[in-house]
Amino acid sequence: MRFASDNTSGAAPEIIAAILKANEGYERSYGADAAMERVTELVRDIFEAPEAEVRLVATGTAANALAIATHCPPWGGVFCQTHAHVAEDECGAPEFYSGAKLVLVPGEQGKITPATLAQALATTGESGVHGVQRGMLSLTNVTEAGTVYTPAEIAALTALAKAHHLPCHLDGARFANALVATGATPAQMTWKAGIDVLSLGGTKNGCLGVEGVVLFNPGRAWELELRRKRGGHLFSKHRFLSAQMEAYLTGGLWLRLAAQANAMGQRLVAGLRDRQAQVPEAPANMLFPEWVAGKHDRLEAAGAVYYRFPAPEGRERARLVASWSTTEGDVDRFLTAF
Amino acid sequence: MRFASDNTSGAAPEIIAAILKANEGYERSYGADAAMERVTELVRDIFEAPEAEVRLVATGTAANALAIATHCPPWGGVFCQTHAHVAEDECGAPEFYSGAKLVLVPGEQGKITPATLAQALATTGESGVHGVQRGMLSLTNVTEAGTVYTPAEIAALTALAKAHHLPCHLDGARFANALVATGATPAQMTWKAGIDVLSLGGTKNGCLGVEGVVLFNPGRAWELELRRKRGGHLFSKHRFLSAQMEAYLTGGLWLRLAAQANAMGQRLVAGLRDRQAQVPEAPANMLFPEWVAGKHDRLEAAGAVYYRFPAPEGRERARLVASWSTTEGDVDRFLTAF
Amino acid sequence: MRFASDNTSGAAPEIIAAILKANEGYERSYGADAAMERVTELVRDIFEAPEAEVRLVATGTAANALAIATHCPPWGGVFCQTHAHVAEDECGAPEFYSGAKLVLVPGEQGKITPATLAQALATTGESGVHGVQRGMLSLTNVTEAGTVYTPAEIAALTALAKAHHLPCHLDGARFANALVATGATPAQMTWKAGIDVLSLGGTKNGCLGVEGVVLFNPGRAWELELRRKRGGHLFSKHRFLSAQMEAYLTGGLWLRLAAQANAMGQRLVAGLRDRQAQVPEAPANMLFPEWVAGKHDRLEAAGAVYYRFPAPEGRERARLVASWSTTEGDVDRFLTAF
Amino acid sequence: MRFASDNTSGAAPEIIAAILKANEGYERSYGADAAMERVTELVRDIFEAPEAEVRLVATGTAANALAIATHCPPWGGVFCQTHAHVAEDECGAPEFYSGAKLVLVPGEQGKITPATLAQALATTGESGVHGVQRGMLSLTNVTEAGTVYTPAEIAALTALAKAHHLPCHLDGARFANALVATGATPAQMTWKAGIDVLSLGGTKNGCLGVEGVVLFNPGRAWELELRRKRGGHLFSKHRFLSAQMEAYLTGGLWLRLAAQANAMGQRLVAGLRDRQAQVPEAPANMLFPEWVAGKHDRLEAAGAVYYRFPAPEGRERARLVASWSTTEGDVDRFLTAF
Repeated sequence: MRFASDNTSGAAPEIIAAILKANEGYERSYGADAAMERVTELVRDIFEAPEAEVRLVATGTAANALAIATHCPPWGGVFCQTHAHVAEDECGAPEFYSGAKLVLVPGEQGKITPATLAQALATTGESGVHGVQRGMLSLTNVTEAGTVYTPAEIAALTALAKAHHLPCHLDGARFANALVATGATPAQMTWKAGIDVLSLGGTKNGCLGVEGVVLFNPGRAWELELRRKRGGHLFSKHRFLSAQMEAYLTGGLWLRLAAQANAMGQRLVAGLRDRQAQVPEAPANMLFPEWVAGKHDRLEAAGAVYYRFPAPEGRERARLVASWSTTEGDVDRFLTAF
Repeated sequence: MRFASDNTSGAAPEIIAAILKANEGYERSYGADAAMERVTELVRDIFEAPEAEVRLVATGTAANALAIATHCPPWGGVFCQTHAHVAEDECGAPEFYSGAKLVLVPGEQGKITPATLAQALATTGESGVHGVQRGMLSLTNVTEAGTVYTPAEIAALTALAKAHHLPCHLDGARFANALVATGATPAQMTWKAGIDVLSLGGTKNGCLGVEGVVLFNPGRAWELELRRKRGGHLFSKHRFLSAQMEAYLTGGLWLRLAAQANAMGQRLVAGLRDRQAQVPEAPANMLFPEWVAGKHDRLEAAGAVYYRFPAPEGRERARLVASWSTTEGDVDRFLTAF
Repeated sequence: MRFASDNTSGAAPEIIAAILKANEGYERSYGADAAMERVTELVRDIFEAPEAEVRLVATGTAANALAIATHCPPWGGVFCQTHAHVAEDECGAPEFYSGAKLVLVPGEQGKITPATLAQALATTGESGVHGVQRGMLSLTNVTEAGTVYTPAEIAALTALAKAHHLPCHLDGARFANALVATGATPAQMTWKAGIDVLSLGGTKNGCLGVEGVVLFNPGRAWELELRRKRGGHLFSKHRFLSAQMEAYLTGGLWLRLAAQANAMGQRLVAGLRDRQAQVPEAPANMLFPEWVAGKHDRLEAAGAVYYRFPAPEGRERARLVASWSTTEGDVDRFLTAF
Repeated sequence: MRFASDNTSGAAPEIIAAILKANEGYERSYGADAAMERVTELVRDIFEAPEAEVRLVATGTAANALAIATHCPPWGGVFCQTHAHVAEDECGAPEFYSGAKLVLVPGEQGKITPATLAQALATTGESGVHGVQRGMLSLTNVTEAGTVYTPAEIAALTALAKAHHLPCHLDGARFANALVATGATPAQMTWKAGIDVLSLGGTKNGCLGVEGVVLFNPGRAWELELRRKRGGHLFSKHRFLSAQMEAYLTGGLWLRLAAQANAMGQRLVAGLRDRQAQVPEAPANMLFPEWVAGKHDRLEAAGAVYYRFPAPEGRERARLVASWSTTEGDVDRFLTAF
């Protein structure tokens, strides 16, 4: 009944096993380890992108900030949804790393629409040297509201950005969950839909702490490496990052872990709707249900852990996140206590 | 025979065991885990500093850059040895995080002296608003040259800095090795010698990847937290950092690991001197020996791995680093092949 | 008929005379000129603030960016109106200098209200270390929409900010015009209303190029000086900045120049309203009138210069700015051509 | 007898006249003034560089910092002489604007030599991602020691930099004095000698406050404009910058002013040598003489103003700078008082 965040889960057994194996003997440091070569091959293969480059860091904020800084000049505006993680939950890390400015684009349920993006694009960079220039686009999938962009929706947004020659970033802290929810392939969700750089999340989905920055335009790889080092994000014992990412991407583990998280998310959605809760669209592993007041205390007393959200008089709202380690038993106990 | 760096070693069994234990069940994220409270208590106890605060990151560059940024304004000069890690091996991370400027202070064998520091202090900040101001002092112990400052030597340097009201930082990437080499207590080597903030290394000495920033002046702890987050260095599954540091500091593990590394370093020093190599002062686990030309290829053929350094005609130089996992057998095979 | 901006006017004769006089002989550089002492005395006297400090720069963007950087940490949020000059017209200078993030606060006619500010204050800094912290308040008077805050309105907003211990900045690029429009004294409009730091505009109101940063809390003066130098804004021949500001503040020149600009602004307002144009509230020297389509081309043909703004079908909008050098003849020719 | 700095002089009559003329009527702001077009044409003509771009700012520190930031990435090292103005007298402005690191290159009398530059180039950027990369070269002419590089000397240094594909900057705060001292043409001293970007000084040589950033590679002009705005250095009443620079470059005024300064400098050199002072090489308008102790007080009592420098026991040192407004009478009175 621990639904506060998927990052309150531990690491999956396969990831732990990979750490143990990686610990044997001596290994070259700072990313020159043999496992990192295998990670690159896995990424290229899985994303059908034989030229792609990937670099590893340990936090999602680092991945996002480095991805943005590598693609947007200090005088650029980064178009992102009003409540994007990069805007609200990273204490200004993207601005710190890039110098750029976030341009908040409204949209329902965590999603920018072509209309709101077009409006933001039209009103930014129109005052010559006086205002920030159009810089890049940053989307999140799964979104911060628990919804999911389809590849077609992403392509529609990146097309608007590309008309201004803007690079496009996808914050994929829950990328595997988005793939599972849509059935899209990694390639369809990224470069085939106009994404130039991906933050490929591992931590929330069963790793200890590893995220990839995947460049579909490999020309910026050296700049990314320098920015990573300069940000203090180059691990000396890098083998432990490589090992996690290798195990994560091998044999579909990442998708199996996400499938479990999503299935438990859907079990929560269905069970809560059965019990007259309102549950906005939530196709992956995160939901923001609303119900009649009085449940919070009961659920908490029963041992449930999750975030309470502000709600209208007489109502209660919550954020619930299922993870790779959530079980049917967890969900069912929660629903019983509801 | 892997002497390239102590960061080519893996993690000690006790650290791995702690990771495995920490992986059980759910835990609060972002530093609110229970183990972090125990880490704080351990640090306060070991350093005899009941008010000290500690925050964890995963790389030494992050620890140094955050420590400096939290104590030096953008217009300050950071006095450090010419070849300090912060100056040569962090790709400008301290400047990126702080905006400050490094003022390179000369000194033999990796060590600033009171004379060279006094000279640098006298010639910095004397031109009013036109030049950078005196900002802070940053020392490294074990130094980048493998030598060690005694607490008295540190105190002599910090006294000069304190006369200008400057905060003093110690880069302790190999702090445990310095303690073992000098017999000093953690308190003697830090706050009792005028150190305000310590980068407490774990990674090189048997952890996977964890470093502490220890504030002996706790008033800046919240600023440090904000800078850590803003730099992308706040781990969501922070329990894995806490677990490493807890195990590292528990029951003297950190000192036992460093003692082994130092002992193997001294075995190398003695063995090489016996074999007519010149070995400058090297009381810890890192040495820069020089010998007659012709050894490099032979040693490499025998399987030895280490860095070659430029040397005069007819001579060869090397950097050798022993680690917690170096064995007497490793050393002896190296000496035999020499 | 040049109404594009008050910065398309030249400098007033008194300012030119002061430049000529300042040019005689040799003078100490970098702000140590004798005239600067007189400027400080003038500011302290005029603002009834015997402790105030003032430093001079040449552009409004520099004044704003330095004022903000000196009062807001990199992890702070600067609360400002959505269309504030600092947000839209400085290409990110405030962020560049401070590292801080602008938090856009909505409000009609260029003005933040206590309700919108309270809302922004309530939803910023509530997520602990994850989001930017409440940093400071920045208001503009005359606002970017041509409206004016009264001292009471400013006090109501700063009181909300002060409840969170936030410093308060006033962008007074058209400060003299705001004084004239409200009849407030400089003290009433600033420190008596809770303002800690003022950008005191000179350029738009008859100077060649000079702006003051006035600190009512003088403790940050040295930091401001260092930031000014570091930003490249410390003039070597500073006497020419001092001379302008001294002449500007002497004998009420600044208020006379602003009174002329405002009077011409009001003449435009009245004349346009007489001619059935819609003119939103515009008590100073800048107005945004709307009229039936067809006027733009006629006015332009007659020699009028101003900015066209987007308008609904069948309508036209304009921004008109009167300056110290605008004459009744200019206004009347415009109205005749209308 | 005011020899403290050439920036303690006022502005030349021709510059003042140009300011007065520019003040007539209305003019477009922010660099769109007609005079700026003429400045561009003048620069292209004088430098025999029909593609060159120039942008104006008001201080030398701004010109240098913007020139460097526009040509060096944040992870680059800027090679400059140990006592370069950018290193010692700008309070970190180049680092603030660029993020880059200054690499101090030793050299006698203010001048880098091919040998010292080659050494610095060889030891920077050799540690892969761990250290800053080779970024750019920045020279000063007239140097901070009062010496002068010939075009051939500059070419020898830029050739070393160009071998690493590094852009080359010339800090020409006293560029006209260097031209006069060497007899070189503007083109010979800049792009023909491998210079890509020039800080073209006006302020010290008879202007109120104007410096040009001249780009011989015009592709970076838009970036320079954005950085200028973002730094708060774009003047609204830009006509006053243009007017100064236009007058300065018209009809050889800049060279006549510099010729007078240099002639007075040489008169000081000769007169002091006649009086047994030691005067190191000083071919332009700045000298650092040394003489037997006892003169300082006498000269000061006679009304001389200049900087005292540290000297050996029994000796005194000074910095003397002649300017466009220094007269033979000034020099002769000084020599008489000596």
